[in-house]
Order: sequence, then C-alpha cells, then structure tokens
Amino acid sequence: MEKLTLVKVGGKIVEEDDTLNRLLHDFAAISGYKLLVHGGGRSATRLASRLGIESKMVNGRRITDLEMLNVVTMVYGGLVNKNIVAGLQALDVNALGLTGADMNLICSDKRPVKEVDYGYVGDVKTVNAGFLVSYIKQGIIPVLAPLTHDKKGRLLNTNADTIAGETAKALAPFFDVTLVYCFEKKGVLKDEDDDDSVIAELDETLFKQYAGQGIIQGGMIPKLENSFEAIRAGVKEVIITQASDIHQEGGTRIRL
Amino acid sequence: MEKLTLVKVGGKIVEEDDTLNRLLHDFAAISGYKLLVHGGGRSATRLASRLGIESKMVNGRRITDLEMLNVVTMVYGGLVNKNIVAGLQALDVNALGLTGADMNLICSDKRPVKEVDYGYVGDVKTVNAGFLVSYIKQGIIPVLAPLTHDKKGRLLNTNADTIAGETAKALAPFFDVTLVYCFEKKGVLKDEDDDDSVIAELDETLFKQYAGQGIIQGGMIPKLENSFEAIRAGVKEVIITQASDIHQEGGTRIRL
Repeated sequence: MEKLTLVKVGGKIVEEDDTLNRLLHDFAAISGYKLLVHGGGRSATRLASRLGIESKMVNGRRITDLEMLNVVTMVYGGLVNKNIVAGLQALDVNALGLTGADMNLICSDKRPVKEVDYGYVGDVKTVNAGFLVSYIKQGIIPVLAPLTHDKKGRLLNTNADTIAGETAKALAPFFDVTLVYCFEKKGVLKDEDDDDSVIAELDETLFKQYAGQGIIQGGMIPKLENSFEAIRAGVKEVIITQASDIHQEGGTRIRL
Repeated sequence: MEKLTLVKVGGKIVEEDDTLNRLLHDFAAISGYKLLVHGGGRSATRLASRLGIESKMVNGRRITDLEMLNVVTMVYGGLVNKNIVAGLQALDVNALGLTGADMNLICSDKRPVKEVDYGYVGDVKTVNAGFLVSYIKQGIIPVLAPLTHDKKGRLLNTNADTIAGETAKALAPFFDVTLVYCFEKKGVLKDEDDDDSVIAELDETLFKQYAGQGIIQGGMIPKLENSFEAIRAGVKEVIITQASDIHQEGGTRIRL
C-alpha cells in the first residue's frame, strides 16, 4: 500500500502568522499522500470574548452552547480552515477544506449529559472514508476542521485529536497511515521540566507503567490512549512531536 | 447532455431558520444534478456590528478591509455554508461546502483601486470546473460560499451573483445548465409597486429598452447583465424568481 501522512496540528501553531507560514511550508514539503487536521481553540476563545461570550472549559474540553457552537463553526470551519486552504493553494498544494458534515464525512452523537453537560459536542460514530479515499488518490489534500454533524442538521464541536485518530483508522485499510500529532513539546517527556527528556519509543506496557507513576499525566493520557487505539486498528505508525518536526526526525514513536 | 440546476439564493433567505428550512426542502426536491450558491451579507453585517466593525457599502458592494475579510470568511465560509451543508445532509442531499480556494475552484484578482477602494474584493478570473464536474457526476452537491482566492494565499470577498454566473458558464460545456437567481420579488417587475407585474420573458433588446426608460434599474441591472452574458456563453436558461419558486413555475425567463 502507498503511504499517507496524516498531520494534526493544534490551535497555537495555526493561529499565528509566523508559525502557520512555517507549518504550511513544512506540510507542503511532505511527499506522497497527506491530510491535515487542525484545531483553533485560542481563536474561538478570542472571538467569543470579543462577543461577550464566556468560554467554559471542563477537563480541557469546551462547553458548547448554541452561541459557542456558532463561534466554533465560524472560527474552525471558516477563518482557520479557509485560510489554511488558501495558504496551501499558494504553495501549489491542492487543498480542500472539510468539516465532518461535508459529504457526510464524519457522523457523531451529541455527547450524553452525565456529570457534565458539554452541550453541542460530538462523539465520533462513523467516518465515511469512500469519497475521501477517492479524492486523495486524485491528488486532493483534505484539510479537516474539528466539526462533525449528527446527520439531523446539527453541527457538533469535536475534539481535533479524536478526528485525527478516527480518520487515520478509517484510512488504514487503504493506505499505510502515519499519524503525526504535533504539539508544543519535542515529544512525550520523561521529565516535564526537561524539554530534552523525550521518550523515543513508547509501547503500551511502558505507557501504563509511566501513567501509574505519574510520569505521564494530564492531556497526554487521552492523546496516548487514542494513539494506541489507532495502532491496534491498523494505523502503521503514530508519532508525537513538535510542529517544527513535521518530517518526524525526532519525537516519540508509539508501538504496540 | 444532462441537466444541471444551479440555484443562487441571497442572504435573507438563508439567514432565517424558517425560510432556510423551506429552501433546503425545496432544493432537496430538485431532481437531477444541482449546485447551490449562497450569500450571507446580513449575517456578516450583524457579526461586524457586534464586533464594533462598521459595514461600509458602495453601490451595494461591501468595502472589505482585513478585519471585514475575516468577518465574511467566518460568516460565509463557516456559519452560513456549514449550516446549509448540515441541513442538506439531514435531507440525504450529499452536500459539499466550498469556497473558491478549495481545490483552487475560483481564482480572482483583487479589484484594482479606482474611484473606490473596495479592499479585499475579488473579480473572478478563472473557474476550474474539472474536479467540480467529476464530483457532481459522482452525486456530490456543491454548496458555494461567496469567497474566492488569489492563488497567493489571500481569500477575496466575491459577489455571489457573479460566482453563480461564472460557475454556470464554466459548467455549460458539461451540462445543460439552468441558472436560477432567487430574490425577494416574483421576478423582474414592470412596475416596482406592483408585485404581480412580472415580466415573463426578457430578451436583450427589451432589457435595453426598459433600462433606458428607467423601468429596470438599480441592482437588477448588473444581475441581468450577468444573465445575458451567461446565456451568450452557453448557459441554457436563466430564470429570475423568488426563493419559494425554486422549481421555476413563475419568474422572468431570460432569452437572447
């Protein structure tokens, strides 16, 4: 099978002109099939604040009422997504911006209300890879915003890491997928205070040991759980690294 | 050739839940190949106003500085476009939301500064119909937002009527295109104060006569000039009617 590189970049990187510009050049230089998933949380918070809407977060996840849903639809689906697409087109990358509603790509269920009511937040149910695979093979580079839909007319705010993981899994039968999670650090760190203490390889046994010891904690835990799930579902490689290492010379490699 | 119906709807219709809902049902009921182009000016003005940004219009066209460009990118490319897509998906219409930047669909030049500096406004240069035609034939229903790009990384605010006309022309070699401009009135009126004075058929000679007499005036003139240009370029039919008549039983038919 041919290789496909699926890059997920967080908000901070795509929300500042300098870092976005560098990212687009680095992404353009990746050879072969590729796909980009982006965030945009900081811009959403900024727009919400200008509109007098308070951003409420629980466990790092945004509470999304109807007003906030409109904000993220505008920021993720419009501002961030379309500027990335235009930027890639300038570099002759034939980008196509998508949400999960487009071509019914990603269907979600509104998250059930338990201890927390997250509002219009989606838990991914199905990724319909058919059209996506055919477009990618025609040379189209999909750029995915972190929005899905419920197939009943409602958009849903959806975690970008999850979208990246689920899309990687859905594409695994068609490509040798390398999933690259870019974030601020050089990789998964053994010592939070030492930026160079990158764990080069991490398997599930070691992960559980480190998590048990509190060496790995916080937002890294769901990211790694997603990563192991992706590998188990047929994704070839998962790499956690910084955005400037999009070509994956460093970072942490996830193994079963 | 097979028929394609290209519907352009203005802002007002897609910006209120009731009229949008009716429009989506009517659009879903159109048989055969189809494509939707939408506006969104009122929502852009409303968001701009909430952000303390003044909307300046000259000859009915929006002056688009960088801040306003971000507003229209969010509203047209995000809020309006993605809600239409999600709404159509709920009706089993396999919609794909697009701007001119996506797949390099529509390239524009930033309008030259003459008496008026319109800012980041695009005059359409090329429509690349290739991918669009292939997607339409696979059953995808494109939903076009009134944004294009300059292929240098910049999005440009672009008149939705123009996008509809230029896209209709680009699709004319591949389909028998019927272009339907929906607006508030029942058609082109002979008497502005009489909603039932619809001109059933209008050719260019009659148009010039009515325009000369001031019977047809204002924003209708560029709309009709676009229509005649489309017909001359091979578009089969152009119909100007109200949104509730999307199936074109009434309205004004444009002939050469």
